[in-house]
Amino acid sequence: MEALKDKIRIEGNALSETILKVDCFLNQQIDVDFMLKMGKEFANRFEGEEITKIVTIEASGIAPAMAAAMELKVPVVFAKKKKAVTMGDDVYCASVRSFTRGTTYNISVGKEFINKEDRVLVIDDFLAYGNALIGLHEIVKESGACFVGAGIVIEKGFQKGSDKLKEMGIRVESLAVIEKMDKGFIKFK
Amino acid sequence: MEALKDKIRIEGNALSETILKVDCFLNQQIDVDFMLKMGKEFANRFEGEEITKIVTIEASGIAPAMAAAMELKVPVVFAKKKKAVTMGDDVYCASVRSFTRGTTYNISVGKEFINKEDRVLVIDDFLAYGNALIGLHEIVKESGACFVGAGIVIEKGFQKGSDKLKEMGIRVESLAVIEKMDKGFIKFK
Repeated sequence: MEALKDKIRIEGNALSETILKVDCFLNQQIDVDFMLKMGKEFANRFEGEEITKIVTIEASGIAPAMAAAMELKVPVVFAKKKKAVTMGDDVYCASVRSFTRGTTYNISVGKEFINKEDRVLVIDDFLAYGNALIGLHEIVKESGACFVGAGIVIEKGFQKGSDKLKEMGIRVESLAVIEKMDKGFIKFK
Repeated sequence: MEALKDKIRIEGNALSETILKVDCFLNQQIDVDFMLKMGKEFANRFEGEEITKIVTIEASGIAPAMAAAMELKVPVVFAKKKKAVTMGDDVYCASVRSFTRGTTYNISVGKEFINKEDRVLVIDDFLAYGNALIGLHEIVKESGACFVGAGIVIEKGFQKGSDKLKEMGIRVESLAVIEKMDKGFIKFK
């Protein structure tokens, strides 16, 4: 998506070879208009797939997921990183390793929110090593639903998450793929 | 907002005198259509206030904030509960006590995202004791911006957060106010 690449070039900032700061429109401030454009793009790419539900992880996944859901007219379900007091024991869980933070965390979704009739599109803000996506894939498979594919806003191609997912047979659609970056320099694929 | 009260009655579930489960449309699954209706209601209530920014806290605040932002055509900024690797030291911080979890956590917003020209509407999913709102109020005041008011999806009136905020001179608009509840029983104000 050319408009996204332009936005990353103008408003984004590569802080190192691995860390991209895009919190002015994606991770802390949300450019709502632009989010809706990305939502339309996701809907176009998965047209005809009869998606019934969008699944994401709190928190930065929620805005692009909601934008895509508006286009596809389906609900969003977001996996939680902490179990809420309102959640019973009837949950799907997966463990996710975060390379950025060097920690492992659990994600969970109430079983009532995904069922075997669902056709699920997973949306997330970033794809790096693919661990969050693999966790969500586990949860969707466990529910018996069909995992249609993953829609990613920004893929850090050099961290190879996409390759891993494609080897697992997962369709990945990234709106922008970064091949290489470093302080003040970003090269798209 | 009558439609919200009906939705809480039909889809919500009071688990105790203090805990309301509404994760089927607000806290885990997002009913996007209904979220947009609530966004319109927030925009109506704050009409003429020349809001320039909506501020919320991750994660459940993001969806209603985004819905309101779509109507008001302004960006959303969400305070983070954990400092991201992309955040520098230039942040506004506040400490928030969670009664539900019995813990205290810090919230932070990059200074670049709120400035003294802004007219801020704070949106959140729940108002209980008001501590999260008071934390956001601190952050907005520190930035020099004008804190126009708070838009709340569900207020637990019996926990008196609203009274506390109103004493501080803060305008609070709640779409539904629960006066009392208990297992299987909800009474609105």
